[in-house]
Amino acid sequence: MRTTKELKLPKIPVFDQRIVAEARQRQELLTKPPGSLGRLETLSIQLAGIYGHLQPKIDRKTVIVLAGDHGVTQEGVSAYPASVTRQMVLNFISGGAAINVLARQTGARVVIVDMGIAADLDQVNGLVPRKIAGGTQNITKQPAMTHEQAVQSIQTGIDIIEAECERGLDLVGVGEMGIGNTTSASAITAIMTGLPVKLVTGRGTGISESSLEHKIETIENAISFNQPDPADAMNVLAGVGGFEIGGMAGVILGAASHRVPVVLDGFISGAAALLASAIAPGIKPYLIASHLSVERGHHAILKHLGLDPLLDLELRLGEGTGAVLAFNLVEATARIFNEMATFSEAGVDNKG
Amino acid sequence: MRTTKELKLPKIPVFDQRIVAEARQRQELLTKPPGSLGRLETLSIQLAGIYGHLQPKIDRKTVIVLAGDHGVTQEGVSAYPASVTRQMVLNFISGGAAINVLARQTGARVVIVDMGIAADLDQVNGLVPRKIAGGTQNITKQPAMTHEQAVQSIQTGIDIIEAECERGLDLVGVGEMGIGNTTSASAITAIMTGLPVKLVTGRGTGISESSLEHKIETIENAISFNQPDPADAMNVLAGVGGFEIGGMAGVILGAASHRVPVVLDGFISGAAALLASAIAPGIKPYLIASHLSVERGHHAILKHLGLDPLLDLELRLGEGTGAVLAFNLVEATARIFNEMATFSEAGVDNKG
Repeated sequence: MRTTKELKLPKIPVFDQRIVAEARQRQELLTKPPGSLGRLETLSIQLAGIYGHLQPKIDRKTVIVLAGDHGVTQEGVSAYPASVTRQMVLNFISGGAAINVLARQTGARVVIVDMGIAADLDQVNGLVPRKIAGGTQNITKQPAMTHEQAVQSIQTGIDIIEAECERGLDLVGVGEMGIGNTTSASAITAIMTGLPVKLVTGRGTGISESSLEHKIETIENAISFNQPDPADAMNVLAGVGGFEIGGMAGVILGAASHRVPVVLDGFISGAAALLASAIAPGIKPYLIASHLSVERGHHAILKHLGLDPLLDLELRLGEGTGAVLAFNLVEATARIFNEMATFSEAGVDNKG
Repeated sequence: MRTTKELKLPKIPVFDQRIVAEARQRQELLTKPPGSLGRLETLSIQLAGIYGHLQPKIDRKTVIVLAGDHGVTQEGVSAYPASVTRQMVLNFISGGAAINVLARQTGARVVIVDMGIAADLDQVNGLVPRKIAGGTQNITKQPAMTHEQAVQSIQTGIDIIEAECERGLDLVGVGEMGIGNTTSASAITAIMTGLPVKLVTGRGTGISESSLEHKIETIENAISFNQPDPADAMNVLAGVGGFEIGGMAGVILGAASHRVPVVLDGFISGAAALLASAIAPGIKPYLIASHLSVERGHHAILKHLGLDPLLDLELRLGEGTGAVLAFNLVEATARIFNEMATFSEAGVDNKG
């Protein structure tokens, strides 16, 4: 276990604007009216800038699903009991969850990480054991974690993506599981965007109107107890975060450092991206927003990050499901670049 | 060649509401918060109703791309010369167009049909020869086609999908190629929805503001010359239609008759769906709107048909590209149904 006080932040390479200009020109030569593939063209140009060349190939895809428990569930903020974190992780391991189904469809590897589940799962085959603690503290009464644990959670995410990059990786999605983690993510979003808690807090897995009011109060209490400093992302994570959220921030930072496009999922991964981009603003061009979640507050996150989601399918499941659904679109843009004929190759007359 | 005066309309089976209710119940049992997969759940329920059972499997996918030329290009309504229809069809045949790339990605068969290209392509290997005439007439001065040709174009579409169903087919997309066909589709949309031409006419492949004004005038002239009867879809098709648009309407009718879900592409296939649903309103539950096109007027079509598009990626290419991009989402919904564990199977606690 690392117990360093300071994060060993990997270097984020500069997004390649020269290649972006070349990619834009290349798109104009392909046999279609200029701009007619809309967002796919923009995305293909972004991909070229990320990879630093004009032949993006996406063969090796992984979705990393980080799981952790949240002490704040003691406050009754969730529609499901905290035990569901462990149960759903076992469901991931046996391949029966939505993320498994969608990952099989797209041919993506699924990596499930125990960042802090409140159960001993060390003997579970197929689960990556990186437990920092058996769940965070109740953030209305204590900081979620220590500063060292916050550093460790991000560092763990970086280490995990490093290992994936060593195997070979072209595209990564970040997902999560953690009963109570929309509470944590709403707190992070309120702090990092400066918006009122009630504007960035939603029903999570499906709580009632009165439970929503209680959830908002709980988050307000947690923020007023912890008083996190918006200028210090590590302090915010330690105050109100989750181990899986810190891990996701690490995955995002590490992926960008390796020029691997990071497909965000919904609200929780968005909160992690807020932390990651506060730590290293240079990661922003490496982010792809897969979808707009139903969860209130996600729109504010995407706006804050300057991201435009690819899908709007009223999803609110998490696990990385939205990210993996968008993999298909990201791959499509790469293929269009590589496989479409140019006007001159195909003997097609250009605009009259 | 058929020369019947009347269409031999296939019987459209009744959409199975009993299975829809069962499918809705099944979704509640899967290991996710109820409704958390949003549009994918709605779509999975629609699929069950179309197929008439709860085990939808989508293995055999085809996109049918119907091509035809338009006499109205003489009026200078298009950004590209009419020769591009033929050239792009040859590009489809050699596999270099966007539709080929996206179909390869998703594993879909591509069927390219000559419905009325203004060139002799009978010797082109891989092109299905169903030419009704070498392009429509200039609709500002004549009807686009005779009543017999209108019947024949729809019947041809039905025959083509029949042949695909005989091979085995689980999902079909309809696409097109035809320089000038947004002019025809705007005329059909204005007539069938009752909206003013200027509200349903856009820039097609990318004409200038002044050309757009000219295009609107041209369409208004064509409608006032032909005076098509909105209550008679065949009369509308004969007056202002295209051979490929009639063919698409036939594909839609034939697919619904075989309980095959039809994924519409953009504006042109939308206009064809307006005609098909006027001919046989029972087809509506078999339609899936893949995306919202940039082309002005597409929104009005979807609203008229009561369809909600899956994607909004600012596409305006046609060829069936949007339809094939949405195949992935349709397949995902089928897989979720078949492969996800239930709460009891996975031992996951349901809502507390």
